[in-house]
Parts: sequence; structure tokens; C-alpha cells
Amino acid sequence: MEFMIRQVISTIAICFLAVTGCISQQHPSLILTQAGIKDVRAGLGTNELFDQVLEDAIAEVDAEILNGVEVPIPRDMAGGYTHERHKRNFFVLQMAGNLYQITEDDKYAEYIKETLMAYAKMYPTLPLHPTQKSYATGKIFWQCLNDANWLVYVSQAYDAIYDYLKPKERKFLEKDLFRPMADFLSLDNPKFFNRIHNHSTWANAAVGMIALVMNDMELVNRALYGMPIDEALRLEKDNDGGFIYKEGMLQAGFLAQLDGSFAPDGYFTEGPYYLRYAIFPFLIFSKALSNNMPELDIMNYRDGIMTKAIYALLNQTDANGQFFPLNDSQKGMSWNARELVTAVDILYSEDPSNKTLLDIARRQNKVLLDDTGYAVAAALKRGEAQPYTQQPMIYTDGEDGTQGGIGILRNKETCLVMKYSAQGMGHGHFDKLSYSLYDESGEVIQDYGSSRWVNIDQKGGGRYLKENKTFAKQSIAHNTVVIDETSHYEGKIEKGELHHPYLYYADLDNLAAQIVIAKDTNAYPGVELQRTLLLLTDASLPNPLTVDLFRVASDQEILMDLPLWFQGQILGTDFKYQRQLDQLNTLGTSHGYQHLWHEATGQPDNSGANSLTWFEYGKFYTSTFTTESTDKLILGRLGANDPEYNLRNDQVLIHRKERANSGLYASVIESHGTYDPISEIPINPYSDIVSLTVLLDTPEYTSIRLETESTQGWIISIANQSNSLSQLHEVSVGSETFTWSGPYQIKRTKNQ
Amino acid sequence: MEFMIRQVISTIAICFLAVTGCISQQHPSLILTQAGIKDVRAGLGTNELFDQVLEDAIAEVDAEILNGVEVPIPRDMAGGYTHERHKRNFFVLQMAGNLYQITEDDKYAEYIKETLMAYAKMYPTLPLHPTQKSYATGKIFWQCLNDANWLVYVSQAYDAIYDYLKPKERKFLEKDLFRPMADFLSLDNPKFFNRIHNHSTWANAAVGMIALVMNDMELVNRALYGMPIDEALRLEKDNDGGFIYKEGMLQAGFLAQLDGSFAPDGYFTEGPYYLRYAIFPFLIFSKALSNNMPELDIMNYRDGIMTKAIYALLNQTDANGQFFPLNDSQKGMSWNARELVTAVDILYSEDPSNKTLLDIARRQNKVLLDDTGYAVAAALKRGEAQPYTQQPMIYTDGEDGTQGGIGILRNKETCLVMKYSAQGMGHGHFDKLSYSLYDESGEVIQDYGSSRWVNIDQKGGGRYLKENKTFAKQSIAHNTVVIDETSHYEGKIEKGELHHPYLYYADLDNLAAQIVIAKDTNAYPGVELQRTLLLLTDASLPNPLTVDLFRVASDQEILMDLPLWFQGQILGTDFKYQRQLDQLNTLGTSHGYQHLWHEATGQPDNSGANSLTWFEYGKFYTSTFTTESTDKLILGRLGANDPEYNLRNDQVLIHRKERANSGLYASVIESHGTYDPISEIPINPYSDIVSLTVLLDTPEYTSIRLETESTQGWIISIANQSNSLSQLHEVSVGSETFTWSGPYQIKRTKNQ
Repeated sequence: MEFMIRQVISTIAICFLAVTGCISQQHPSLILTQAGIKDVRAGLGTNELFDQVLEDAIAEVDAEILNGVEVPIPRDMAGGYTHERHKRNFFVLQMAGNLYQITEDDKYAEYIKETLMAYAKMYPTLPLHPTQKSYATGKIFWQCLNDANWLVYVSQAYDAIYDYLKPKERKFLEKDLFRPMADFLSLDNPKFFNRIHNHSTWANAAVGMIALVMNDMELVNRALYGMPIDEALRLEKDNDGGFIYKEGMLQAGFLAQLDGSFAPDGYFTEGPYYLRYAIFPFLIFSKALSNNMPELDIMNYRDGIMTKAIYALLNQTDANGQFFPLNDSQKGMSWNARELVTAVDILYSEDPSNKTLLDIARRQNKVLLDDTGYAVAAALKRGEAQPYTQQPMIYTDGEDGTQGGIGILRNKETCLVMKYSAQGMGHGHFDKLSYSLYDESGEVIQDYGSSRWVNIDQKGGGRYLKENKTFAKQSIAHNTVVIDETSHYEGKIEKGELHHPYLYYADLDNLAAQIVIAKDTNAYPGVELQRTLLLLTDASLPNPLTVDLFRVASDQEILMDLPLWFQGQILGTDFKYQRQLDQLNTLGTSHGYQHLWHEATGQPDNSGANSLTWFEYGKFYTSTFTTESTDKLILGRLGANDPEYNLRNDQVLIHRKERANSGLYASVIESHGTYDPISEIPINPYSDIVSLTVLLDTPEYTSIRLETESTQGWIISIANQSNSLSQLHEVSVGSETFTWSGPYQIKRTKNQ
Repeated sequence: MEFMIRQVISTIAICFLAVTGCISQQHPSLILTQAGIKDVRAGLGTNELFDQVLEDAIAEVDAEILNGVEVPIPRDMAGGYTHERHKRNFFVLQMAGNLYQITEDDKYAEYIKETLMAYAKMYPTLPLHPTQKSYATGKIFWQCLNDANWLVYVSQAYDAIYDYLKPKERKFLEKDLFRPMADFLSLDNPKFFNRIHNHSTWANAAVGMIALVMNDMELVNRALYGMPIDEALRLEKDNDGGFIYKEGMLQAGFLAQLDGSFAPDGYFTEGPYYLRYAIFPFLIFSKALSNNMPELDIMNYRDGIMTKAIYALLNQTDANGQFFPLNDSQKGMSWNARELVTAVDILYSEDPSNKTLLDIARRQNKVLLDDTGYAVAAALKRGEAQPYTQQPMIYTDGEDGTQGGIGILRNKETCLVMKYSAQGMGHGHFDKLSYSLYDESGEVIQDYGSSRWVNIDQKGGGRYLKENKTFAKQSIAHNTVVIDETSHYEGKIEKGELHHPYLYYADLDNLAAQIVIAKDTNAYPGVELQRTLLLLTDASLPNPLTVDLFRVASDQEILMDLPLWFQGQILGTDFKYQRQLDQLNTLGTSHGYQHLWHEATGQPDNSGANSLTWFEYGKFYTSTFTTESTDKLILGRLGANDPEYNLRNDQVLIHRKERANSGLYASVIESHGTYDPISEIPINPYSDIVSLTVLLDTPEYTSIRLETESTQGWIISIANQSNSLSQLHEVSVGSETFTWSGPYQIKRTKNQ
């Protein structure tokens, strides 16, 4: 149906194009508008936030003008001089265009003109970039992707000075620079332009935006509807290992991206770090289409998918606004990124009823240097912001929302993220049913993220490091079960792309007991994985508890490892371990194990449950987990087989069960106390959990009992084979019988 | 002469006591005064800061009153229940006393009375604390030190409710609790009471303060003048390895502490962490003496030593107010500690002309709940604070200021601390001529501090861990030269206490080029160590440079190691190294080397200088150092032979010279660029240094040339054998001749 809607809209659009034969004769009209600029000019000096942004931009661009035009012959990788210079150029040109429109000072127009002339003189002489390291090598940069970035920004600068330029100058720029570049990014690079992928979104936006400025109908159509699909590209991959051609792909171009890039509720299969990157060309081109082809009604396309994607992105953040580092993510990226400033300002300008966006803008403390930014700054000044609050949420994955998803359980600043999504294309990790945990300070149980230092030349030119593949993507790098020391899907993307886990049950309505249950049957042949995560909040406890029940059922004897990537210094354990004192060896030879030093091996005692306490951010955390006496508790440290110090030296506790064919990992994580080195007084340094017991674990039912110091107790039971809400269940444990209906029961008990 | 002054004052004091036979009949008068309390009461509701402190105290104490009196039979080590409960009791009792005086609500007096009665009933029955782990085991706590802490606080509570109690009640408390405790802490524990040591300061203050409340002349004299010296204790040590009896000690008691604990300019030989701890009993007892025996004029004793010590303490901090973690220090302690709130408030109340203290009080955002705190809060409200600025400073060590010292070089937020002080008694480290470096974010080149988690039960009951001795105190744990893999003084405190390095030259007057040169000839027999540290600031560089010239001259062939404890992730090196990939071994077997994993060995190239770049706090740092082709560059990681994870897993670069008998380590450290994961744009990620060359290194002269990207250059020359200011020097290097007078020259050059 989505597809049909698009076809209808496409038809309208084509009719429109056919009828008028042109888009707009006014400039600027791409992102800036003449009416908007009037408002901005009228408001200058009245709004501190916007005035500050303007002042900063003037300082930055004036310094560049003083420095003079630099358009070097392309040579370097990311991080190197020519790369960083050309990158800086496109940011500065876009800013200079806006400054010209706002201040009406010709020096900005002149600077843009001179720079563009320098590019136009150089461009026809450029061969492919000498690095030749990309599946789609660019001309100005090492990859077409960066060339497309350049054009998205520079088309705005060109629009801003369009009327300043003489017709002959425009003709020269279009003939020697813009049109050849647009053709290069599309006709010459179909593998880059014609995918359903964030790279192609940039390509489509770049071609479409310069087309709108140049009033070039052919290019606009190419941007919106793509080029003919070449199925011969079926087996080709990009640099990240992702397929160029997606099975069943019938269309390309910008509208196809909108259809194919997001799940219906806005989740992006590569995860929030890449959505943040990908959203920018979606939005900026949409804004340009909205200004120039309002009949497309692009913001309402696919039931407002763009708005949904942005709200989904804002919600995939921890208490500090940092994105969950799912899949290939550089940690630390947050809703303060420039792409999110763009998203918030454009979305607000398209629909000023979104008042909670103003609350994000307030935290960003930054707005765009254009009419949308001014509108946000003005609304903020009028005090129109409404509080933005992150929500517990289930997001589905896949174009039609049927390929698993992620579950975000949260209460106040504690946030538990379960990942049962699809592979996530080339940037996906082999981490089915993994989770990560956050609190007000940041990561408590981490997702490693990617092994990459974006744009840092010293670290492999800023590209993905080889340890990204050998460690970061592997299952052992995540908080999920690894069987026979082999990653999910054997670590093969071809297999991973074919399958996905699925949501068994979720209920986030009860804030005090949010639950997600997901299953997977494809990560390992003959093995069923089932994980229940519960975020339990109780007045008797200082913080919400994470309760984790991970069931593994195999048709053969296997070795099972469950890593816990806790963050901090080990304070104590209630089990004995022998640490390697004067020699360290690796934990294994492949699937990421080769990167782990085997620091210590511990033995559970016979109490049935053991615990590890660590300290971080001035807080005490404890994981309490049920154990069998034959289990091993292995402490590992990252850093082996890492010849260039590319990996962090993080620590992990691996709970190992050998020669088992089924097993239940039941555990609880608490943040229970605090200590600061100034008062030197520890508050509640020991766990509040007094017992954790598996009452029952069969293919049909799993039931555990949890008791705390404060004489509170819970019995948590899961129906493993029926997620029907109405099904009645009855379980007997010793003399006790529990009955309930539905997939689970949480029963409060008083300790005896 | 100091000693003579003290004798005179002692005589005055004794006369005074002899004449009047009593101190004061008024209560409260120990810390609170009747006049002061009137001011406080009058000001209630007018001062937000003080009102907040009052409100917090009421909430805290009321909760304790609701909880009821808890006076358990002593049993636990620090971190355990009885320890923490008794500790909490003394804090709460002191607060309750002040609340009683301020609010005049009898419930506080009643709570104190009940609690004290419980202690008085228990005390006569108490044996020594069952732990028996201290050289001076307490009764309520595991060590007398904590019992003394208790009495210092509780004497204030007793003073506050003195008039509330019936004479019979007072008699009971004094006979069964206070007098026996005072005798226990003094007569029964001369090793504890009669030292020149922070433990004894607490002991003296405890006995003196309860004596002032009880109007007990004999005890006051014991507190002020100590007990007869028993030289038989000469060879005994405390738990930290410090000697009980200090060579040449003639007097004990509080006044002797004031004479013997500080250098003339206020430096404390154990370092700022312990001065922070030690200063509290000095101040609180001085305040009590000031209130009750004004004739002693205690604040002007020894030319105002207390005031000097507090200002010295405030200045031994980094940009965030954190104390330099010299010797046995727990990191993170800062001028926000309660002891510093006390110091600032009492010092201000004694001399309200100290207006910069108000600036510290403003940052502390906390004041004492008494007249001194109210005076500070009121002055802050009147806007009387004057800016407090940390200063570059040379502090001498030793009672007479002749035992080396520390040099603090700083410019804005960069701070370079060189340590050439005496051993520092039981808490000293074997780190002659070591340094540490700080910037606005914290530690850049760290001092390890101590291996201890103060009050954390899980970590050895909160005491020093054995790794404190085996690693933290050892020379290799510090940024200083280690010879033949053996710590300074062979790691023996007996030898360390006999010697100290000395200051050769210092000039901190030129903010842009601060220099300290120190030498040592005793850490290793037959070896002279000389270190020059220079903090160089230039408009062409983003941040001050640390220039380090460490000369070693030996009469035999030795192996030299210079560790660099940089903080952060290695980004890159310009030398090749081979990292151990699948097996790690230790770097050595003793003197701390047994705790270091040997991660990698690098070889200098033949350029004469190499560098290491790392990343931390969003910043790029580079160390550039001259190398000879036979040097080894070893990367080590802490954590070997650490069976209980007591050590952090910090990293170190060790610059090794083998089979040499002299050597110069010349190096430069820069903070040159920034990167944040939100913009993902690296700013200046590479070092600005283009060359570092040793021009000359002879016993007489050392001369280096340093050049930067910005075509700036410096030639730095040191006269190694004459620190005379007027001596003329002439040095020829190739065709160049440099002439200067005095110990050093810094000559600006333009690069050719």
C-alpha cells in the first residue's frame, strides 16, 4: 500500500513538472526563502540566541575570507589536509551564503563566487581521487559520499548568490562544475546513486538540490525517482560489507529511500548513529522540495515518515541525550549534533505545533543560521517550549515493521535497551538479543560501539579499523549469549541479512514493571534463544533493577558464554577466582575471543547465586546471577592481538556453561550506593539482594524468586510457549502453586 | 629561635593557668560562643546559604532522632557497620549540639544526652577493639585515631548541652566517659599521643577540647605540652611504616606539633591530602583555644603558621581545586572537603580581612553550622568576596625549610608540579625529582596516588592495600628516573628519611617561562640526578609547553628508565613498536616492575627525536623526546601480580637506556588540539613540534634546541655546575656561541 501511495504522488509530481516545466524563478528559495529572510533581518538584535549564532558565523567566515580561498588538488584521506580543507570549504560556503542573505554584505557573495570559480576551473581536470579505496571513489574526496555532502551544502551557497552572479558566470559554474558533478554522482556511479542506503540519500539530495537551483527538470526527476535498476549488481558489496542491491528492490531515488529506509514507526535499521547521519539529507532535500514543489507534500509522505523518524531518533538516547551506540556507532554522538539541530529546526518550521521540539532546541542552545533557526529562537524567546520527555518504547525494524526491533525500557534516568532487530546491513553487529544499560551518568553495561575514530587521520585515516570487524561486530563484544565461541550467523553478514529475532511479548505500560521478551531461532542452527528483560522499580530500592532471564535450548551439547560488559573497577566478588599473576594468554583464537586476555577464572560457590560488585561514576553497582557449581566465571580484558592500540581495554565477566544443552542465565543488576572521594563516606556499598533463586526452568515455564534486604520479594514467572494474553497457566514449585493468565506474572511476596 | 618563642609562650600560658586556675564558666564557649549564637539567631531567614545549611542539618539530624539512638558494641573495621555507625554518631552529635544552640529546641539536647548516656554506660566495659590491627588500637574504633576524631566532635556536642544537663549527669559523663577516654588516648597510648604526627594532633585536640569543656587544667596542659618523651620508642613504627619517635624530638603536645609539623611557609611533609586531614584538629583546637585562652594568641603562634598552612593547602590544587595526589593520597579530594570548609570559615572568622577566602567559600557553596559559618555566609551576601587565584610557588620542606620542597609552575589552568621534598614520613613515596602535570580537565601526566579505597569495606576494610607498598610507593610508579630497576633509597624508608634532594635554582617570576631545577645525590649511591622543568608559554602555541631535561650521571654503567604516566588512549607514535599479541609477561620481579605487563617494545628511528600522541578529555597530547638509536621505548600496563584487582590498569611509556653511565632525557609535552565526538572534526591533531635537538650535554652545560610548526624556536641552556646569578657562561655549538649569566638561558630563535 505504501508503494501505491508513492506511485500516486509520483504521478502528481510528474504531472506538475510536465505542466509547468520549471520550479521557481526566485532566489533564494532552496532552503532560505525571501519571506523568511525578511523576518530574520527584522528580528536582528532582538534575540540573543540567534544573534549569537550570527556573530559566531560572522567571526568564522570572516576569518576564512581573511585566510583566502584554498581549493587544493584532492589527494588525502579523511583527516588529511585536502580532505579537511574541502570539507571545511563546503561548511563555510553554506554559512557565507546565509550571511550574504542576512547581512546583504557583498563580501560574502564575492567570497563564494571566487571559491566556486576555483572549483569550476579545477573540476573538469580532476581524475578519480587518487586514493581509490572506496567502492565509489569520488573526485574531490576519497568517496562519492563526501562529494555528495559537498554538493548538498554548496547548492545552498549557489542559491544564495544566484542573483548576485552574472548569467555568464552562472553558465560557467553550471556547465563546468555543477552539472558534471551531478552526472558523476549519478550516471557515472549507479552503485552509489541507486541504492536504498544512506549513501544514496546523500546522492539523491545532492543531485536534487542543485537541480532545483539550476531549474533542471531532468535532474530533479533523476533525484526523485532514481535510474533504472541494474540487477547485475546483486552480489556487489560496499566498503562496509553491505550489499549494493537489496533483494526485491524495484525502485531507486529519493522517494524510494523514504519507502525503504525506515520502519513504519521511524526506526532505522543501521541504528541511531547512522540515522543521525542519514536524516540530514532526507530533511534538507525535503525542506527544499517543500519550498519549491509544495504539491509533493513531502512532509506527509508515507504518513509523515520523516517526522516519525526524527522523534524515534530523539528517543533513542540516554539521559544525557547520547544515542545508544547500537551497531557501528562512535560513542558520544548526541542530539546536540548539527544534524539534529537541523532536524529540530526544520521540523519545527514545517509544523510549529511541535512545541516539545523547542525543549530540545533549548538544550542544544543552537539554531540554524536561517529562517527556520530564527523561528525556533523566536519561539523559545516567547517561552513556547513544552517539556520533552523520553519514553519507554518498542520500535519495529524492517520496511514493513516485521523484522524484529528494539525495546527501550526506562524509568526516570535508567534506561535498558534490548536489541532484537534485523542485521542492519553493512553497519550491523552480530548481537541478537543483546542489551545495554544506562543511567544518569551514562553507560552502566556497555555496547562496545564501533572500532573507529571518525576523521582522526592517525587512526587509519578515520575509517573503520580492522578491529571493527574482528572484534566490535562479533557477538562476544555484546551482552548476549555466544555458543561454541562462534558469533551469531557464524559472523557472516550474508546469513545475518536473511534472518532476525522476533518480539515474543512486551508490556511497557506499567512504569514500575516494564517487560520485553524476544526470541531467536536462527543465530545458531538448532538453538532457541529467549531473553526476558524486566525493569523493576520499587519504593524499597534506590534505583530500578534490571532483571534478565536468558534461556538457551539446544538440540546438541554446546558451550555457552554470556558476557557482561560492566563499566568500572571491580570492588569485590562473593566467589573465588584466581587471577593470572605473571602471564596472560588470550581467551580464544577467533570470533573476537582472540582480542580478550584471559585475566582470571572464578568458581561459583554452592549457594546457587553469586555476585560481582564494581564502582564507577561514584556509584556502586552489583550484578547478582544464579550459578551452577560447574559454571566458570571468567574475567577478560580487551587488548590482545591489537598491534596498534585500536581497541579500548575494557573488562568483561563471561559466565560460561560447558557441555550443556540448555541453560538459564538469571541475573539482576542494581545501582545501590554511592561514594565520593571528598566526603569519603560510602553509602550502601553492598547489594540489596539477599537471594536469587531459579524455582523452575522447563521448556514451558521459567520462574525465579528474588528477595532484597528490605524484606521485599518477587516471584517472576514466564510462559515460554504461549504469548497469548488470555491463556491460563498453573505452575507448582514444591508446595506452592502459582496461577496466572498471559505470558508472564510478577508476584510480590513478603519474605518469610 | 622558633623553639625559644614557643618556650616563652608556654611560660605565659602556664602562668596564666596557674593564676586563674580555670578557663571559662560559660557554655557554649568551645567553638560556638554565646555572642556568636546571638548573631546567628538574629540572622535566620535572611541568608539563603546559611538557611540551606541549617535546613539540611535539621533534616539529617531529625531523621537520626527518628531512627533512634544506636550505640553498638564495637566490632568492625572501617566500612563495617559498627565503625560507620559510631562515625556517623559523632558527626550527628556535633550537628545536634549546634542545632540545639541555634534553634533552642530541647529535642536536640535530649537526643545528645541519651546518646552520651549510652556511650557512658558502655565505655567502662569496653576492652580494646577486637580487631587489634593498629599500632594504637582504639576502643570504639579499630584505631585510637578514630576514637580521637570522635572526642573532637563530641566535646562540641557536650559543650552545647552543658547547661542543659544536670550536674549529676555531667558528673556521670565526665567520670565514666570523657575523662577515661582522654586518659586512654594519652596516658595509655603514649605512642599515639606523644608523636609529631597528624595522629597525635588529633589526640592532643581531643584531649584538649574535652578538657576545656570540663575545665580540667591538668588535661589542658597535657594536650598543649604533651607527656614526657620516651626515647625507648625510637625504633618503633606505626601501621604505615613511619617512625613513632622522630630523631631529636624534645617536646610533644599541641604546641610542639605546630613547631614540628610544618615547614616555615606552611608545607606539610606528607603532602596536601594529609595536610587536609591534619589541618582540621589544628584549627578546631586553635579556635577553641582562641575562644577560651586568648592570651595564648594561638593564631599568631610561630608567625601565623596555621594561616600559612591553610593558604599553602589551598594552593596545592589543580584548576578544579583537587589536591595534587602527592605521596599517599586518595585522588579526587579537593578544597570542597569538609575540613577545608572548616579551615576557610574559622580562618575568616579569626581575621575577616582575608577576603579571598570568601571566594573559596563561594565555590564550596557550604558553610559551617555555627557563628563562623554564619559570618562567612553574611559576608558573601554582602558581596565582600575577592577573587582567589592559585599562584606559582616554591614551598620548602622540613621544620626549618631546609629539606628540599616542591615547585608549582602554573599558567592559567596548566599546572606542573615538581617534587624534590623530603621522604614525607610513613606516607612518603620514593619519587625524588618526579613531576605531575594538570590542565583544566585534570591529570595529564599522573601521580598514581595511593593504592587505597578509603572507608570501602570491600577493599581491605578501607585501609592501605598491600599494592600501596609494592607499587604505589615505588619509584617506577612515578615520573622520575629509576636505575637498575630499583627504587630510590632501595625503597627503604629508613634510608629515605635520612636524605632529600635540593633545589638548585627556581625562577617563577616570568609567567611565560617558569623554571625549576633540582638535584639529588642520595637516591642512588654514586649517581647524580638533575632535573630541569620549564613551563613555557608562547602566543604561537595553543597551550603552555612542559620542557623537561633530566640529566643522570653515574660513576658506573647502569640501566636507566624514565616512565611517563600519560593518561589516555594511544593515538599514534612516530616510532615502530611490536606489541605482544597473544601473550603478556611482566616487566620485572620487584620494586613495582612485577605489577607491569610488558605490552610492547619500540625502537627509536634515527631522527634523534620521537613522539607519542594520545587522546584524553577530548584533547590531543603529544610527548616529543630525544632518542638515541640504542634506546628502548617500552609500553607497560599496570595490573600484573594483582590478585584482587586493587590496582588501576593505567598505561606507561618507559624510556630505557641500557649500559650507560650518563644520559640526558630531553622532552616536551604539549596539549595541541581538540576533538569532540559530536562535531567529529579534529582540530590540530598533530604536534606543533618540528624538531627537538640536544645541542650539548656535558657535566658543565646542557643545551637543547626546540622548534615548532609556527617557525618559532628556542635554545634552552643550563649551567649544571653553578647556580650563581652573576656567573658568566659561554658555550659553543658548531659555529654558534651562546653567552649568558646565571644558571640558565632561554633564547628565542627564528627558524632558518
